[in-house]
Amino acid sequence: MTEPDLTYQFGGRYPIAEVRPGQVLRTSTEDCFSGAVRTVDDLPSEVCQQFNPVTGPFLVPGAEPGDTLALHFVEIRPARDWGMSATFPHFGALTATHTTAMLHPPLPEIVWRYDIDTTAGVVRFQARRSTYTVELPLDPMLGTVGVAPAGGEVRASIVPDTHGGNLDTPELRAGTTLYLPVHVPGAMFSLGDGHARQGHGEVCGVAVETAMHVTVAVDVIKGVPTPCPRIETDHQLIAIGAARPLEDAYRISQRDLITWTAQLTGLDLVDAYQLVSQAGRAAPGNVCDPNYTMHAAIDTTALHGATGYHGTHQRLRDLAGRLRTDLCGAAAGTLR
Amino acid sequence: MTEPDLTYQFGGRYPIAEVRPGQVLRTSTEDCFSGAVRTVDDLPSEVCQQFNPVTGPFLVPGAEPGDTLALHFVEIRPARDWGMSATFPHFGALTATHTTAMLHPPLPEIVWRYDIDTTAGVVRFQARRSTYTVELPLDPMLGTVGVAPAGGEVRASIVPDTHGGNLDTPELRAGTTLYLPVHVPGAMFSLGDGHARQGHGEVCGVAVETAMHVTVAVDVIKGVPTPCPRIETDHQLIAIGAARPLEDAYRISQRDLITWTAQLTGLDLVDAYQLVSQAGRAAPGNVCDPNYTMHAAIDTTALHGATGYHGTHQRLRDLAGRLRTDLCGAAAGTLR
Amino acid sequence: MTEPDLTYQFGGRYPIAEVRPGQVLRTSTEDCFSGAVRTVDDLPSEVCQQFNPVTGPFLVPGAEPGDTLALHFVEIRPARDWGMSATFPHFGALTATHTTAMLHPPLPEIVWRYDIDTTAGVVRFQARRSTYTVELPLDPMLGTVGVAPAGGEVRASIVPDTHGGNLDTPELRAGTTLYLPVHVPGAMFSLGDGHARQGHGEVCGVAVETAMHVTVAVDVIKGVPTPCPRIETDHQLIAIGAARPLEDAYRISQRDLITWTAQLTGLDLVDAYQLVSQAGRAAPGNVCDPNYTMHAAIDTTALHGATGYHGTHQRLRDLAGRLRTDLCGAAAGTLR
Amino acid sequence: MTEPDLTYQFGGRYPIAEVRPGQVLRTSTEDCFSGAVRTVDDLPSEVCQQFNPVTGPFLVPGAEPGDTLALHFVEIRPARDWGMSATFPHFGALTATHTTAMLHPPLPEIVWRYDIDTTAGVVRFQARRSTYTVELPLDPMLGTVGVAPAGGEVRASIVPDTHGGNLDTPELRAGTTLYLPVHVPGAMFSLGDGHARQGHGEVCGVAVETAMHVTVAVDVIKGVPTPCPRIETDHQLIAIGAARPLEDAYRISQRDLITWTAQLTGLDLVDAYQLVSQAGRAAPGNVCDPNYTMHAAIDTTALHGATGYHGTHQRLRDLAGRLRTDLCGAAAGTLR
Repeated sequence: MTEPDLTYQFGGRYPIAEVRPGQVLRTSTEDCFSGAVRTVDDLPSEVCQQFNPVTGPFLVPGAEPGDTLALHFVEIRPARDWGMSATFPHFGALTATHTTAMLHPPLPEIVWRYDIDTTAGVVRFQARRSTYTVELPLDPMLGTVGVAPAGGEVRASIVPDTHGGNLDTPELRAGTTLYLPVHVPGAMFSLGDGHARQGHGEVCGVAVETAMHVTVAVDVIKGVPTPCPRIETDHQLIAIGAARPLEDAYRISQRDLITWTAQLTGLDLVDAYQLVSQAGRAAPGNVCDPNYTMHAAIDTTALHGATGYHGTHQRLRDLAGRLRTDLCGAAAGTLR
Repeated sequence: MTEPDLTYQFGGRYPIAEVRPGQVLRTSTEDCFSGAVRTVDDLPSEVCQQFNPVTGPFLVPGAEPGDTLALHFVEIRPARDWGMSATFPHFGALTATHTTAMLHPPLPEIVWRYDIDTTAGVVRFQARRSTYTVELPLDPMLGTVGVAPAGGEVRASIVPDTHGGNLDTPELRAGTTLYLPVHVPGAMFSLGDGHARQGHGEVCGVAVETAMHVTVAVDVIKGVPTPCPRIETDHQLIAIGAARPLEDAYRISQRDLITWTAQLTGLDLVDAYQLVSQAGRAAPGNVCDPNYTMHAAIDTTALHGATGYHGTHQRLRDLAGRLRTDLCGAAAGTLR
Repeated sequence: MTEPDLTYQFGGRYPIAEVRPGQVLRTSTEDCFSGAVRTVDDLPSEVCQQFNPVTGPFLVPGAEPGDTLALHFVEIRPARDWGMSATFPHFGALTATHTTAMLHPPLPEIVWRYDIDTTAGVVRFQARRSTYTVELPLDPMLGTVGVAPAGGEVRASIVPDTHGGNLDTPELRAGTTLYLPVHVPGAMFSLGDGHARQGHGEVCGVAVETAMHVTVAVDVIKGVPTPCPRIETDHQLIAIGAARPLEDAYRISQRDLITWTAQLTGLDLVDAYQLVSQAGRAAPGNVCDPNYTMHAAIDTTALHGATGYHGTHQRLRDLAGRLRTDLCGAAAGTLR
Repeated sequence: MTEPDLTYQFGGRYPIAEVRPGQVLRTSTEDCFSGAVRTVDDLPSEVCQQFNPVTGPFLVPGAEPGDTLALHFVEIRPARDWGMSATFPHFGALTATHTTAMLHPPLPEIVWRYDIDTTAGVVRFQARRSTYTVELPLDPMLGTVGVAPAGGEVRASIVPDTHGGNLDTPELRAGTTLYLPVHVPGAMFSLGDGHARQGHGEVCGVAVETAMHVTVAVDVIKGVPTPCPRIETDHQLIAIGAARPLEDAYRISQRDLITWTAQLTGLDLVDAYQLVSQAGRAAPGNVCDPNYTMHAAIDTTALHGATGYHGTHQRLRDLAGRLRTDLCGAAAGTLR
């Protein structure tokens, strides 16, 4: 695997490459430790200077503020047969942090190494303080995908917000389409922070971190704005809220899903409110980052099969399927 | 359906009946509107004096503070072929409330009526402001199950806390075992608030409310305390946190699941923290009640099949299965 | 000091005495440790079974739901020349608690003893781990004053809510009038938890706790409801919100102060919103109890001298002044 | 008043001027509406493109990451005899916002115009929906003062965080010294958002906004880091936390004040925790910005007169006093 072009911010960077709407990008991402944590004796606080590198930014010609960027993830495949996790001082949901400030000394910093078996489709947990091991399903995802923020802001890659960023939701797996608002000409998207798998909320603050091979089909929906990150799968619509406290992340995601539902079905807003109240699902992505994330989801069966953005997900999915056999290392293939 | 004995509090009430450990209780519950909302023209704020009645309390002889009450739900079956939902002034996650106090006038109060088809296993949503209808899966649950609180407190039935109460989690369906701490002699449990189905977080504040026929096998685990409500299913362990802000409900549930995991597997606490971080699931129950709820869940496969409370769930489940054909209206059958 | 009649709940108790509207009550209160912590070697977790006793409840004949109870504090005087404070395991704003659940072990439990010098008007802090001492102004207050809650609830005395309870605000000092909603016939008020002084937010969870001699003039404002605890002083109006997260306590208190301001001045609600935005003060009472509290205050000069409840504060204050010399130990004197 | 050099971000901008340590800067600031709201008919949502301009950034030669920037405010004087306030759609503490997302339509957008009388020392409130007027004390402050953030971030000027920014605390008035961490060479500080006065929490989201003449003495404390914004006055030490939920802003500020207290007095951390618990004051700055702010304060009498940063405040104050008569329009005078 060649070294990807890494950055640690969204916004404020020159693009490393162009990807045109309708093209497929093949790239790779480093793990959140920049690959520096390889054994259980590599403490992140000692071996890492920065955290959470992303590959990018990629400029999408023609994308303008007010448009929506569509990223269909054709493939998110572990680039190594191992992944790392850790507790990190003053980071995580069950520890005093710099924000939830307390007088406790930090919890101990400990590293775990997982074997990743892509053939068997499992990751193998090995306890540090006993001989306990267990296999968990492999479920690769990207923790961090975003665009340059609005208002000229530059945000650390560890922050999730309306520009995407460190969403840390397991819903961002292969086969899905991520929709992001475009805030600057060219959108300037970056991606990284692969997880071999992750629990809801990433409670200790760190998932099973690993480098990834990523194939993503890119498109732009002109003139259609998007208020917050959204995901479409073959069977559901998902909205993502990023905020603190956690109920505000819930509120953002639910309101957006309700609004989206009303738009796609013609339902009055109060009827959409009622329908999502009974049919909606929700889960936390992270409860440890500078903004917490929650997603709100609804099965499209409850919407009589309605799809978002004029069928963009299905179109990218179909084309990606046709091109899949041809993709063999070139930086980009044409979808249209 | 005969009128159940209803109350609107946990604690401070004399028992309506005794249920011995090892017995099966058959009872019924009213909906959260006490059955007074029957058409879309019955506004809850006009036709209801109190909300969220529960059936009980039931005294369990021998249950003492420090024990755990186990309630295995053999059956939760809609007692009507219709259910009601509504928006209610100053209640719900996307509206100003008495707690999240604002200067907005309340959102409009609107009622929805659902058809419940237990044969087809669906509930039918009908929009109020258009002709849109759609069927959603029937998934009956009880919103409110709890015991008398600790410290001599009496809590309104709408409140969830460590004593259980208005947990409003869709995980509380038939086939599961709910574990609750015993705070007073006899435990004094009550149950109610049936939902034909409910979305995660109950975003508008009200589920598909309906009366239920409930069959529950009761047991007491002597000398084993329980810190917060827990649920065991055939395949997973679940802990429930009730608090505001929502991240504290998440923290409570995650910490309890981690502690429980460590106890059942012999894992060190930090290893259990790590394992749950990767294998755990989480979702909000309600984001509208006086305390919000979230649950934390883990598949028992990640625990090499460990089960809680010395196999109580499986034992109650097996016995309930054997007795199921014999249950035909008597108040209680013997499990042991 | 004779032993006061103590309870640990609001609601669910028979009255210990009657106090008629227009009477002055002289009573005493124990400290939050029930007097069991007397030296720095008395650890609360070892010597206390229950916490935060209150004296009462007192029945006020004629008080009915929908009325307002007015309690004018004529005197709050330390009954001892010492007070105690402590850190307590899993309690306080800068430590993991049962609600803000974490994996940290508790912070150490430590006790401090203060000298109280009522003549000099100071309390004397003595460090435990050095010889540092310093005097702070004596500023006696009651942490806990409340009535029986609404809806048949019984709440632990440590909880603040709309019924009052453990407000823990330093604004509740002698010379002020506290207004509380009446939820049950007779109001059933109790009081306790004297603090020789307290910082904003009671950050470690415990103030300078001491027994108090309390003189309070009681009145009932018939037919005037009160939405949340309010305080009137000679120069300001104060509203108190109790909730989590802390911003909701802020919202409740600000909305109530704005509404109250509009009522008293005839200002439109949006103008009152604007006026309080510029003229209002706010501070946390506690950031450690089951509900956090914040108060919102405005100088009555900004309201052209408007006063609340038809001059109740001034009337009670004037009469208390006239009677002060006559009060010499009898349980109650007549104000009207 | 000549047009100041305005920007809308912290970080990512070239300096507009240099100010050496020991120099006094005289400059001016625009109001948060960039001066475009001048009558009650100028709706901010219509006449403003951007909000909250700051003057700067100023480069301080020799300031390096790990140092502390000291800004002593010699003068903050209204540059106009009027100030503006407003409600703004989806902004403020008592309204649904983009973060506390709800289904309510926005509250009405209304503008208020205040007369500012610097001679009498008052601002005059005039109601919009009645003839009510009242004078409030003039208490000029700067809402926004900050440096370039850490980690290469660029933040909108409306955001408060560890770099300072939109702190919106009335404690930032003339006569005080603000300490900020230096994150980039030259510190790159900016300032703006003058308020003729402001209530605690800025509940409607907007203070009495006006342009200001600002005189500030600048210094750098080499090799001494500062964890979060701090203010020193002649009589107190103040720490400022910026976070959501509001209790986290409280926690940050209290922990920092406790740590600072321990450092200055030699107290053990637990003794400082106890002392601040009894002697500390706290109040919200804003409860409307992307991060809420609270400050924690202690009188230096409780610290036997200890002062921060080796007497920097007193030194800057003394020198500013000597130079005050000589300052007559030049950009900078020398303090050392």
